[in-house]
Amino acid sequence: MRPSGRAPDAMRSIEMIPGFALHAEGSCLVKFGNTHVLVTASVEERLPPWLRGKGSGWVTAEYGMLPRATHTRGSREAAKGKQSGRTQEIQRLIGRSLRAVTDMKLLGERQITLDCDVIQADGGTRTASISGAWVALRMAIDGIMAKNNLSVDPLLAQVAAVSCGIHNGNAVLDLDYVEDSDAGTDANFVMTSTGGLVEVQATAEGAPYDEEALLRLLRLARIGCNDIFAAQRVATGR
Amino acid sequence: MRPSGRAPDAMRSIEMIPGFALHAEGSCLVKFGNTHVLVTASVEERLPPWLRGKGSGWVTAEYGMLPRATHTRGSREAAKGKQSGRTQEIQRLIGRSLRAVTDMKLLGERQITLDCDVIQADGGTRTASISGAWVALRMAIDGIMAKNNLSVDPLLAQVAAVSCGIHNGNAVLDLDYVEDSDAGTDANFVMTSTGGLVEVQATAEGAPYDEEALLRLLRLARIGCNDIFAAQRVATGR
Amino acid sequence: MRPSGRAPDAMRSIEMIPGFALHAEGSCLVKFGNTHVLVTASVEERLPPWLRGKGSGWVTAEYGMLPRATHTRGSREAAKGKQSGRTQEIQRLIGRSLRAVTDMKLLGERQITLDCDVIQADGGTRTASISGAWVALRMAIDGIMAKNNLSVDPLLAQVAAVSCGIHNGNAVLDLDYVEDSDAGTDANFVMTSTGGLVEVQATAEGAPYDEEALLRLLRLARIGCNDIFAAQRVATGR
Amino acid sequence: MRPSGRAPDAMRSIEMIPGFALHAEGSCLVKFGNTHVLVTASVEERLPPWLRGKGSGWVTAEYGMLPRATHTRGSREAAKGKQSGRTQEIQRLIGRSLRAVTDMKLLGERQITLDCDVIQADGGTRTASISGAWVALRMAIDGIMAKNNLSVDPLLAQVAAVSCGIHNGNAVLDLDYVEDSDAGTDANFVMTSTGGLVEVQATAEGAPYDEEALLRLLRLARIGCNDIFAAQRVATGR
Amino acid sequence: MRPSGRAPDAMRSIEMIPGFALHAEGSCLVKFGNTHVLVTASVEERLPPWLRGKGSGWVTAEYGMLPRATHTRGSREAAKGKQSGRTQEIQRLIGRSLRAVTDMKLLGERQITLDCDVIQADGGTRTASISGAWVALRMAIDGIMAKNNLSVDPLLAQVAAVSCGIHNGNAVLDLDYVEDSDAGTDANFVMTSTGGLVEVQATAEGAPYDEEALLRLLRLARIGCNDIFAAQRVATGR
Amino acid sequence: MRPSGRAPDAMRSIEMIPGFALHAEGSCLVKFGNTHVLVTASVEERLPPWLRGKGSGWVTAEYGMLPRATHTRGSREAAKGKQSGRTQEIQRLIGRSLRAVTDMKLLGERQITLDCDVIQADGGTRTASISGAWVALRMAIDGIMAKNNLSVDPLLAQVAAVSCGIHNGNAVLDLDYVEDSDAGTDANFVMTSTGGLVEVQATAEGAPYDEEALLRLLRLARIGCNDIFAAQRVATGR
Repeated sequence: MRPSGRAPDAMRSIEMIPGFALHAEGSCLVKFGNTHVLVTASVEERLPPWLRGKGSGWVTAEYGMLPRATHTRGSREAAKGKQSGRTQEIQRLIGRSLRAVTDMKLLGERQITLDCDVIQADGGTRTASISGAWVALRMAIDGIMAKNNLSVDPLLAQVAAVSCGIHNGNAVLDLDYVEDSDAGTDANFVMTSTGGLVEVQATAEGAPYDEEALLRLLRLARIGCNDIFAAQRVATGR
Repeated sequence: MRPSGRAPDAMRSIEMIPGFALHAEGSCLVKFGNTHVLVTASVEERLPPWLRGKGSGWVTAEYGMLPRATHTRGSREAAKGKQSGRTQEIQRLIGRSLRAVTDMKLLGERQITLDCDVIQADGGTRTASISGAWVALRMAIDGIMAKNNLSVDPLLAQVAAVSCGIHNGNAVLDLDYVEDSDAGTDANFVMTSTGGLVEVQATAEGAPYDEEALLRLLRLARIGCNDIFAAQRVATGR
Repeated sequence: MRPSGRAPDAMRSIEMIPGFALHAEGSCLVKFGNTHVLVTASVEERLPPWLRGKGSGWVTAEYGMLPRATHTRGSREAAKGKQSGRTQEIQRLIGRSLRAVTDMKLLGERQITLDCDVIQADGGTRTASISGAWVALRMAIDGIMAKNNLSVDPLLAQVAAVSCGIHNGNAVLDLDYVEDSDAGTDANFVMTSTGGLVEVQATAEGAPYDEEALLRLLRLARIGCNDIFAAQRVATGR
Repeated sequence: MRPSGRAPDAMRSIEMIPGFALHAEGSCLVKFGNTHVLVTASVEERLPPWLRGKGSGWVTAEYGMLPRATHTRGSREAAKGKQSGRTQEIQRLIGRSLRAVTDMKLLGERQITLDCDVIQADGGTRTASISGAWVALRMAIDGIMAKNNLSVDPLLAQVAAVSCGIHNGNAVLDLDYVEDSDAGTDANFVMTSTGGLVEVQATAEGAPYDEEALLRLLRLARIGCNDIFAAQRVATGR
Repeated sequence: MRPSGRAPDAMRSIEMIPGFALHAEGSCLVKFGNTHVLVTASVEERLPPWLRGKGSGWVTAEYGMLPRATHTRGSREAAKGKQSGRTQEIQRLIGRSLRAVTDMKLLGERQITLDCDVIQADGGTRTASISGAWVALRMAIDGIMAKNNLSVDPLLAQVAAVSCGIHNGNAVLDLDYVEDSDAGTDANFVMTSTGGLVEVQATAEGAPYDEEALLRLLRLARIGCNDIFAAQRVATGR
Repeated sequence: MRPSGRAPDAMRSIEMIPGFALHAEGSCLVKFGNTHVLVTASVEERLPPWLRGKGSGWVTAEYGMLPRATHTRGSREAAKGKQSGRTQEIQRLIGRSLRAVTDMKLLGERQITLDCDVIQADGGTRTASISGAWVALRMAIDGIMAKNNLSVDPLLAQVAAVSCGIHNGNAVLDLDYVEDSDAGTDANFVMTSTGGLVEVQATAEGAPYDEEALLRLLRLARIGCNDIFAAQRVATGR
């Protein structure tokens, strides 16, 4: 029995509110249960100097968490003067995941920045971020295309992410904070709507795990990502 | 005629959603029109070392803005590795304003941190922050009292803030971004529900202003703060 | 009775020594009693990149305090690796105040930096800085004009600043450190010689103040600024 | 055909020189072909403040690369004033991997820091680091036990790591720099000598990969880790 | 012929104004010609944590230069967020020099910090700093002794410093900025009034120098230091 | 009797392994007994912006020490976020020393960076760095000349460095860590193979020293540098 009462292969309720942010070219408030992340996509029609002149664009991500998104207040990274290793690891993962489904040549010499800010945290903030970022990116690219600044769609597929883990000896989908704190193995999967894997990260928190456990988690992740792909299609009207 | 069509002494619609944040001891999502700030109050039952042993508590504030809260994306302060002068000025003002209505002796040896994070910006983010912070602080202190950890209420009055300015030669209340960018004089007033002034900051952006202008802005501020006090009372059920 | 024995509307002795610094294009050692600030004006004939090409100049300020300018040694900001919020707030105020009396178009594409370094502190360092900075700026602009690099004077008026406060229930002018530490309300006023207000900042340190108090402080500030304007004219030979 | 001429399941030559560092409690110069990493283990008999008093020890890691370990000089992180996101990600991975085979209760209230410094880089620096770190850690713990400061061995198993990838459509083991720069999928596996998985990180650099590819890479990794386990046993005389 | 018209073995005029700073326990405004440095000595009756409990005191120094002390404005180290290598080298030298004539056991568990701030620079700022720091330190220690907090004088001798160099092929004493910019060899000597050497630093800026040149510079330094010792005695009334 | 049993004028065994680093244009692993420094020379065919367009090249150095190069672990400068004053002082000295024997005009508009990383420390790391850096620089320049990118050799002479000191009242050559920790006077000499002095730095750690001591140390340094010059010639085949 999971603390939340969910079945082992049940996602938390997924909510994706597109266009939540007034100013951004694309945005999505994504909720996986009590985990709420606001993602915005900002389009800049010029690249930073080190990326210019290659005929390609760039998609990048930044991640942050409001100090009191969590049970106890964490210190503000801007006040501490640096981003933690965890923050950097997460924003690198988000950027890689979205680039995996974007054709940089087709995007052209522009940069899209995906800002993922966790308003409220209850486990799975990085996977919610990736999943919501796709919606914001889709909206931003639709906007560029609507202005006739882009003729071929550079977004090759949907991408979604979900966490799975071994909790009390059982493989379970979409860990919330209570499960995550106590899981023996913790894994994040990033998948495309075309069935491909973009990233697998599976970490033993306690005892090592075996190949069968990895495969069980992978099967759960497919179930979860399919739910997310459906929610993304609803949110973007596709 | 104001760009928004408002009367010179009209506030934007004020919305205050108390308890918006799941984990915080107090919280308020405050909206002045399109300016949306999420304020949380975090209670810590012990003080940082430099404040200990004086029999008094402390109320402090931190302020941040999501990178795409604004028309064009601003850089993330955590990524730049420092808070701007503007950010520090604002968070110092918020802290001072809330301390002005809190009796530190009565609060006892605990610290309350008010995190004000701008989700969406359209002018007046610091005044909305102060106004919403009072609601979050009120909730947090009510919580401490409900647990019988505090017998006498240390919150002496309500505090609210509003911006006023001279736009196109007219004194107007509660500037939005369009007016603010173009105002000749820009002033922020922090007032208490007992009629006192906590802070006046009036800056000539272009030509200097005169004493009569200052007084006209002050009169407008009283009107605006009264509206905010009413909204605060509704939000906190007082 | 004030601790210093001064009348409520009496400034400390004002001394302004123009040309104190050997190398700077303009400079002034300004003394308000025991508060001594060395201000230099540095003219650069080119702007930083983000200001170029707009046909306008820029006036900016930096502020610092020697570690032992104060009663007890403060830590050196260069050694700590960052400027405090207070320092940034003050240098932003100084810059704004001097820009308020300078026509940026007339100044042309050059930048003048006003460095205000507190050699000795006894209250009112920011107001002394602004007042002395005007002398240094006047000298620097005179120098540019003398070289025929500027035909129309971009300096529109004098600007001066003074602090006032409520001490022991009385409104008093030009607070020294002893009064400042103990004042109920602390206000800084920046005024022009043409009678205009550039900045009003009035803060309740203890109980809130009322409108009458604000007006009383404003009247005292006019008296003080007039004394400073006279000293500035003597220092610059105008 | 691989650029190096190696068979798909062939490791580069593995060399592990224990005791390379004069001063450290444990050390190993580990070479995977032209990738050379110097690992030292430093034992401190007291914990940092935040870990004290829990009756457990801690194993942590830091990672660095000499500026000219690589084909072109990289900037020195100490001179830039911060560690890159990549560096932090790697040192977090190394620490986690070694902690996975160490019983913190048995280790007692002491900390062992594993410094992994890349002297020369040719792909696979993080996996060489983990593999060599085990040797340094084994030596350090042997030293503590030899001094009778520890009666039960806290090191539960060997741990090793290797990279695999899809290069030119083929799954290959232990990528060197040339292959790594050009691989479609890049994966790092951390395994224990008892057959368990500690960490799997598999990233699509270009097109997404499928489950079969992941399993093929996993099989290669087992082959590689077995070679490394053998080399570790030789190096530590076990 | 030297640019200044001075004889090869002539110091610039030396001026030492003790007690220049109102608040410091010791202070000296030292002038070597147009080089003006304000030195303050701050006594703290407790040591920083890492120096406590050894029954010894500590003397340390910090060095800074006002941005416009020089011909063209230098950037403010506090604004840049770090002290330059040059600044750190100088403040380490000042600290070492003063410690060389102070008995740390006799000083007892207190710390004296010597802040050397260059108000105006014309070459030789580090040697003027050391020379003036001795006066400030002497005053501070006299103050401690006058309060009967110290019975035996921990200051063992005077210490002074001067720069010498090879300019236009001639060995000259006390280089000003014009000579310094153009010197082939530049040397700083720190000496005690008891005839000892504390520090010699002689650097070839162009061609290497020979042993005879080093000895010639050393002889000049003795002449200069004797002048400084005399000025120190006058300033401290010894 | 020296702790190591060496004669007062005996160097430790000198070993210089040229070409130790696979990727660098020049490199040398230099050993002075148990002090081991890896020096690489990196040639960049363009200068940083502030050095461009003057028809001259530049030689610069960076210095670092692996955290466990020493008896007890030092903290990693990259993790602390800044280089210590000691590190900066040393890398400035190394750069100056190598520039003293390089004709910048002849070098042309290119930069050579000498990275000196201490793998193991036992006293004299800065002097070993300078001595080994000459070998790496010689190799790098030979490489440029071999590619016909430079017709006249810009390297004017050899440069070497050695430390000397007064230990137990005796002047001794090439101090190891044990002697260095306990020396009354500590001096570093940088000399050219043409007999010139590039830098003399002699510091009294305890009591001041006299002119005769300085000269004795200088004579020892000549003996040591001659040994190093011979080793450099062997290493570079000259």
